[in-house]
Amino acid sequence: MAPEGEAERIAQQTPSADGQPRGTARQVLEDLRGSIPEHLLLTDPAQLTTYECDGLAAYRVTPALVVLADTAEQVAATVRSCATHRVPFVARGSGTGLSGGALPHAEGVLVVTSRLRTLHEVRPQDQRAVVDTGVINLQVSKAAGPVGYYFAPDPSSQQICSVGGNVAENSGGAHCLKYGFTSGHVLSLDLVTPTGAEVTIGTEAPDAPGYDLVGAFVGSEGTLGIATRAVVRLTRLPEEVRTVLAGFETTDQAGAATSAIIAAGIVPAAIEIMDALAIEAAEAAVSCGYPQGAGAVLVVELDGAAQEVAHEYAAVEAICQQEGCFEFRMATDATERAEIWKGRKSAFAAVGRISPDYIVQDGVVPRTSLPAVLRRMSEISAERGVRVANVFHAGDGNLHPLVLFDASEEGATKRAEEVSGMILDLCIEHGGSITGEHGVGSDKARYMPRMFTDDDLDTMQLVRCAFDPDGIANPGKIYPTPRLCGERPRVRQGAHPMTGDGVEVF
Amino acid sequence: MAPEGEAERIAQQTPSADGQPRGTARQVLEDLRGSIPEHLLLTDPAQLTTYECDGLAAYRVTPALVVLADTAEQVAATVRSCATHRVPFVARGSGTGLSGGALPHAEGVLVVTSRLRTLHEVRPQDQRAVVDTGVINLQVSKAAGPVGYYFAPDPSSQQICSVGGNVAENSGGAHCLKYGFTSGHVLSLDLVTPTGAEVTIGTEAPDAPGYDLVGAFVGSEGTLGIATRAVVRLTRLPEEVRTVLAGFETTDQAGAATSAIIAAGIVPAAIEIMDALAIEAAEAAVSCGYPQGAGAVLVVELDGAAQEVAHEYAAVEAICQQEGCFEFRMATDATERAEIWKGRKSAFAAVGRISPDYIVQDGVVPRTSLPAVLRRMSEISAERGVRVANVFHAGDGNLHPLVLFDASEEGATKRAEEVSGMILDLCIEHGGSITGEHGVGSDKARYMPRMFTDDDLDTMQLVRCAFDPDGIANPGKIYPTPRLCGERPRVRQGAHPMTGDGVEVF
Repeated sequence: MAPEGEAERIAQQTPSADGQPRGTARQVLEDLRGSIPEHLLLTDPAQLTTYECDGLAAYRVTPALVVLADTAEQVAATVRSCATHRVPFVARGSGTGLSGGALPHAEGVLVVTSRLRTLHEVRPQDQRAVVDTGVINLQVSKAAGPVGYYFAPDPSSQQICSVGGNVAENSGGAHCLKYGFTSGHVLSLDLVTPTGAEVTIGTEAPDAPGYDLVGAFVGSEGTLGIATRAVVRLTRLPEEVRTVLAGFETTDQAGAATSAIIAAGIVPAAIEIMDALAIEAAEAAVSCGYPQGAGAVLVVELDGAAQEVAHEYAAVEAICQQEGCFEFRMATDATERAEIWKGRKSAFAAVGRISPDYIVQDGVVPRTSLPAVLRRMSEISAERGVRVANVFHAGDGNLHPLVLFDASEEGATKRAEEVSGMILDLCIEHGGSITGEHGVGSDKARYMPRMFTDDDLDTMQLVRCAFDPDGIANPGKIYPTPRLCGERPRVRQGAHPMTGDGVEVF
Repeated sequence: MAPEGEAERIAQQTPSADGQPRGTARQVLEDLRGSIPEHLLLTDPAQLTTYECDGLAAYRVTPALVVLADTAEQVAATVRSCATHRVPFVARGSGTGLSGGALPHAEGVLVVTSRLRTLHEVRPQDQRAVVDTGVINLQVSKAAGPVGYYFAPDPSSQQICSVGGNVAENSGGAHCLKYGFTSGHVLSLDLVTPTGAEVTIGTEAPDAPGYDLVGAFVGSEGTLGIATRAVVRLTRLPEEVRTVLAGFETTDQAGAATSAIIAAGIVPAAIEIMDALAIEAAEAAVSCGYPQGAGAVLVVELDGAAQEVAHEYAAVEAICQQEGCFEFRMATDATERAEIWKGRKSAFAAVGRISPDYIVQDGVVPRTSLPAVLRRMSEISAERGVRVANVFHAGDGNLHPLVLFDASEEGATKRAEEVSGMILDLCIEHGGSITGEHGVGSDKARYMPRMFTDDDLDTMQLVRCAFDPDGIANPGKIYPTPRLCGERPRVRQGAHPMTGDGVEVF
């Protein structure tokens, strides 16, 4: 939920701080006409409205022009024209992001990459796939499955989200505890930089020479350019998968079981916890048959070699019993496994059944801080009279609290937003982060200074300015205050070597 | 071995391309006197000579001033002074690098971080350690061992190399097949940027917001600043380790066994191959007892849960037999394991026993190209009459050919250098890279254009210029031609959207 005036701030923000005149999206349109077919250039207000938000519908801005790129060259031509006229552009894949990263710019161009859908190659012998960035996440796994591989990053939206969106947001998913985020699965990217250069970053070789720009680009949320093609790493399908569901009376017990599993040296593919309110919502929505009366359920998925999984399964069962679970159930086939995951995966949408409005928060804390953070969250919830449902990737401390409210009730929205913000502060306080996997986007730029010093943020923006001196690539996202790109980095002149005090000069 | 004139090129290269006057190391010395104890500031020529090279002794340059920093603040004060006077600086940890990355600058300051040796914290519950960057790689594992963890990156120099050097070079080691390079084990860094800003990059949280600057910094070879403190990830000690040694008649057979092991879905901790010449050298040096008459030996290390290792061991044995190994031996205790590794780890130094001079090359190819590349290398060796010994991380295609020669023989050095360069070309041709894990440093800057386009290199240098507008941080390394940092990135004006042709303007 956007705080008042926030969407306007972003829409109106003029990223060019150097006083140079900006052109208009109309000039970009003129440049592209004749070379990009008319039906790919949208200017009709009704059509433009379709693109006014991504998965975070609280923020809405209608773009001035939408380009539905059919080829990487069309993306490059559009960006080059934007660079020439200094017109902002925003990239959008499938538009499923949850932080408003693909929120358009009112005077800018929205470059839609979802039609770049060629899956060029699956090379099982090298564990690689080469895909255009509009390819849907799940399509990669479907293509690689018959030869024994899959694409490991699995955001809940994987049936519709694009590889390009995964790259922009460094998407995770339930299984990133074991397999890591998108950044661990991308080897090389073809991209168009904000000045229109078409470059390849990364290589397929391990420890490639030069800077690891793939590392910096993955998760840059559209601020360093638009990727059009990716070489991704494929992961071998495990020999066996076992999914278990354990019912506990309290989240503390489920949390203790999680800690004990990890402490035993087991790295499950996923460990998820849902609390009573989240279970209630999921049951109301999809009747997933979770244990009656559970204060918390723990979903643990084990994968790997059959013998290893059997061994780990026995250990997980013993641990859960020891931590007081009153029900322990294993999916015996794919249908039962899907049933267990259905409740978990529907949880976000499901809270709509028990609350007219809700905020999906996304924060992360060190796993060891989970019990303290959960206890404090439940105190905050009680103090403020705001219900909070918890669904989280317990293995890596990634919380997704759902803050429930009824917008028609006076002051309820504000209270919910306050609680949501307090949860992020709580995460920071415990050495965690303001986002676990949804990104900063439009939604959390204002929280960045709570986590980073000005110098830290300036250092990140050095990179932004290097790639995008005119501030045209997704302006207003990630950083609360755009850096003036003409500035030289500060040198602390005459500082005393022992104290570091000194005058900062430019 | 440096081509003629190369060391001079680097020593003399004036990185400041904007015509601004540079100060001198003497001015830096004046700034630091009084705040940094005299005994930490080296100017005596005899002392300076100690630092004239790193592990790549073919390149030697005496620095103008050496600062032995005792604290992060002293590093910052030195860099700030260098920034003020626009004097080049080079960071050096233990000085074990093999690409001349720590080669000093003749007019510059060498900042030695090896005295930053505080190991602040080992936190097994979070799998983290906090260390100053001068801490020796193996010290981290020694400190974490008693609580069941270790630091996974294991370059052959791990008994003496520093964590800071590992960060600068993104060091790998025999076990990076399974555990990855240094970049996968660093969560956050405190660093001093080339303008003297002290910042923290990265966080301990997964998928931290903002750009993943840790990804870009790890492997940046001292060109983006000096790291003084690192939060690193610890890896759980495996329940069981089995190390096997298999003797084959040919490297083709050993290579086929490697492919079959990987194809079976086994990810060993390490798979190493040594060919006949490398075995001969190792035997001559350390009498490691490798199988008599072997054309190649394969060292496979399996680690993990005991049951899994037992299962994988059986599979590896069957595969090796099937591919024709004539000896298969497992280390039954730590002593026998050390014995097997001794031959492998001593191989580089050992070739000194069979050849007066040699070049250690470092390249990488896709694993599937290994047989073709090895065959072509042996043809090149025969054609040119230059012996090449092969020792390599077969699992990830990282070759370490040892090109043998006798510098006292006329033309031999030149022939060896040519063969060494041809091997790199061969790697590039097969979609590989000019360095697998030793870095670009001084040695391979000239090869970068064979692998990257001008636009690719310019894009990397955008980042370099952003961090280091005056070009004072380790100039002459990585990039063959320094970018003029005052330049704006190019925009292709008026390019035709379908062809991309256009005039590049600045």
